Amino acid sequence: MVNPTYEKLGSAPSMIRELFAYGLRRSAEVGPENVFDYSLGNPSIPAPQPVQQALLDVLHDTDPIQVHGYSMAGGFDGTRRAVAEDLTHRFGMTIRPEELFFTCGAAAALISVIRALTVSPDSEFVAIAPYFPEYLPFVESNGGKLVSVPADLDTFQISLDILEAHLTSHTQAVLVNSPNNPTGVVYSRQTLEGLAELLRRKSTQFGHPIYLIADEPYRELVYDGVEVPFLPTIYPNTLVCYSYSKSLSLPGERIGYVCVPSCVEGQADVLHAVAGAARSSGHVCPPTLVQLALQRCADARPDLAAYDANRRLLYRELTQMGYECIPPQGAFYIFVRVPDGDDVAFSQRAKLEHDLLVVPSTAFHCPGFLRLSYCVSHDMILRSLPAFRAIREKYQ
Amino acid sequence: MVNPTYEKLGSAPSMIRELFAYGLRRSAEVGPENVFDYSLGNPSIPAPQPVQQALLDVLHDTDPIQVHGYSMAGGFDGTRRAVAEDLTHRFGMTIRPEELFFTCGAAAALISVIRALTVSPDSEFVAIAPYFPEYLPFVESNGGKLVSVPADLDTFQISLDILEAHLTSHTQAVLVNSPNNPTGVVYSRQTLEGLAELLRRKSTQFGHPIYLIADEPYRELVYDGVEVPFLPTIYPNTLVCYSYSKSLSLPGERIGYVCVPSCVEGQADVLHAVAGAARSSGHVCPPTLVQLALQRCADARPDLAAYDANRRLLYRELTQMGYECIPPQGAFYIFVRVPDGDDVAFSQRAKLEHDLLVVPSTAFHCPGFLRLSYCVSHDMILRSLPAFRAIREKYQ
Repeated sequence: MVNPTYEKLGSAPSMIRELFAYGLRRSAEVGPENVFDYSLGNPSIPAPQPVQQALLDVLHDTDPIQVHGYSMAGGFDGTRRAVAEDLTHRFGMTIRPEELFFTCGAAAALISVIRALTVSPDSEFVAIAPYFPEYLPFVESNGGKLVSVPADLDTFQISLDILEAHLTSHTQAVLVNSPNNPTGVVYSRQTLEGLAELLRRKSTQFGHPIYLIADEPYRELVYDGVEVPFLPTIYPNTLVCYSYSKSLSLPGERIGYVCVPSCVEGQADVLHAVAGAARSSGHVCPPTLVQLALQRCADARPDLAAYDANRRLLYRELTQMGYECIPPQGAFYIFVRVPDGDDVAFSQRAKLEHDLLVVPSTAFHCPGFLRLSYCVSHDMILRSLPAFRAIREKYQ
Repeated sequence: MVNPTYEKLGSAPSMIRELFAYGLRRSAEVGPENVFDYSLGNPSIPAPQPVQQALLDVLHDTDPIQVHGYSMAGGFDGTRRAVAEDLTHRFGMTIRPEELFFTCGAAAALISVIRALTVSPDSEFVAIAPYFPEYLPFVESNGGKLVSVPADLDTFQISLDILEAHLTSHTQAVLVNSPNNPTGVVYSRQTLEGLAELLRRKSTQFGHPIYLIADEPYRELVYDGVEVPFLPTIYPNTLVCYSYSKSLSLPGERIGYVCVPSCVEGQADVLHAVAGAARSSGHVCPPTLVQLALQRCADARPDLAAYDANRRLLYRELTQMGYECIPPQGAFYIFVRVPDGDDVAFSQRAKLEHDLLVVPSTAFHCPGFLRLSYCVSHDMILRSLPAFRAIREKYQ
């Protein structure tokens, strides 16, 4: 009667959501101050003041029929122009307004790109594990195949040799996410140049372009001045999927974009296919109010001081306790190696014995680690430290 | 390299959009006062004052992290509760909050339902022609088959005999849209009771439910006190797809919902499948700000005086000129019979000779008529009358 794949997808909450729901229940039972919830990647700093002000200003000074009206499918010209100028200014590569197609967030951007590039049931999309769990339904429910390739498990950079072994004539795209969820790692320029060289070589070998899909919701969240190279400048056949959810703390506004720069092979066709794929998945236009606000503050950036303080505190304390952590450079995640490698058991024990909620990396298709989202209060981190210490001691 | 279906869908603008774009170009050339654009179904009255006020109030009095944060996938409990109470109050049937799944507008709602009910490549969805052109890509790009069944061409009610002949064991759902785009007709209680009887009988015959998908963005736009029956009270296996785009003039806010009432067979499975289908098409959550506003004004209704005045003027004047119009009861469309039946030629002539933009009904898979959207200024209608008269005279 109903589609069993979707029925399952809609009834089985993700591990992350399950932990979060457990946390809410426990907070009601034992008090929120006694629950240490590192489960969700939900921004904990408010949207920058200029963004909040721009939203109010638009509501106050613009005709309500326009503020709440349709825009063109890919967004208002003015918004695309403002964002294109900001990108051009920052990355030393001209991005024209018509190369941007605004969407309801990064999920819609990614799915539009995946659908656009799926040409047969054999079409393959390669993801580097650990990866965002939704990549799997994004690809498989939209007609393609997900190919999982493990990252280098010491550095969590891309292992080019392993990747090469997984590229086939059916590979349509490689999906990369840097700064990375769940590892907090930023791919180095060296990694990305190696990746570009590999993809160029394999594109020639297979006689068709292998596109790079850059999933970049965390682009603006980096620390210690780490560089996040703009991928189209390294590999021309890059489609950028962006979201303002994390960078401007606007997940509820549902706004992001696909950027298909003019250097992309078959650029016009790709952009049309993205627009058609979006249309066929229920996209009419991106929300208008936030578009009009963005037009006024396309250069707004987050104040990362709170995240950075959390990152330093957690990294320092956990490593002092004897945990091995991947040095966190970006996003708001820290990736911790589980002493005996059983991440699911660690997460379960932490939950049941300490009301400490950490996501086992099995959820990201790479067992042996824990993801801690440090978009939480500094105080919660401080209160949680004894629990981390107590568990660590059990592993001695 | 890219999916050809989506490439075509993204590069071929609809007839309606093409007319609209032509109108913008001509406005720049000859002045907007000389172009009579009846092409788009774009609300021309502002959102009701309580809605505008609620949006401002939410921004002023709510924590920005909540205002711009994620909600649960199906929407905030508070919003679902407020809307469920409003529906229960109006339609004499209990709708519980958990029977509502909020989406980014009606397109996303419809696609989620269509995907949820597509169980094989043979799954059929029946639409009554003329119908909203997007139904075709909505169904065919999501795995199903669209079966087009002509309406009764005198009344534009559903012709039950013709419909019955098109129902097969593969029929998963019948899609109805009342008040109707493009005809402006509201399905009578008699029509709907006949439809319910037919669907019950065929469900029994085929041994599985045939669902009714009620596409209801125009529910609140009716005139002269015409009744719009709430379909679940007539046919229990009804899934309602709603949008606030037209009723509250909020198309840019991207907000709507799917309602799967408890009387639906396999209700929990259907609702899960809708949620899973939405998730697999890039839906994370509906926009938050407008959800929080709706929670405060779920009972807001539009002031239809301006649309009604336009409707009366157009109907009176066109019929006096000798045009045959389907009596418009709802939405903001009037459906006009083309004297010689060639709607495309009429539309073309009107455009080229008079800068009068009317949509040929061929776009809605039912040739011979014109759709006029009267969500325009009253003054534009008055100025356009000589053009209608001049064309009508050529058909004498």
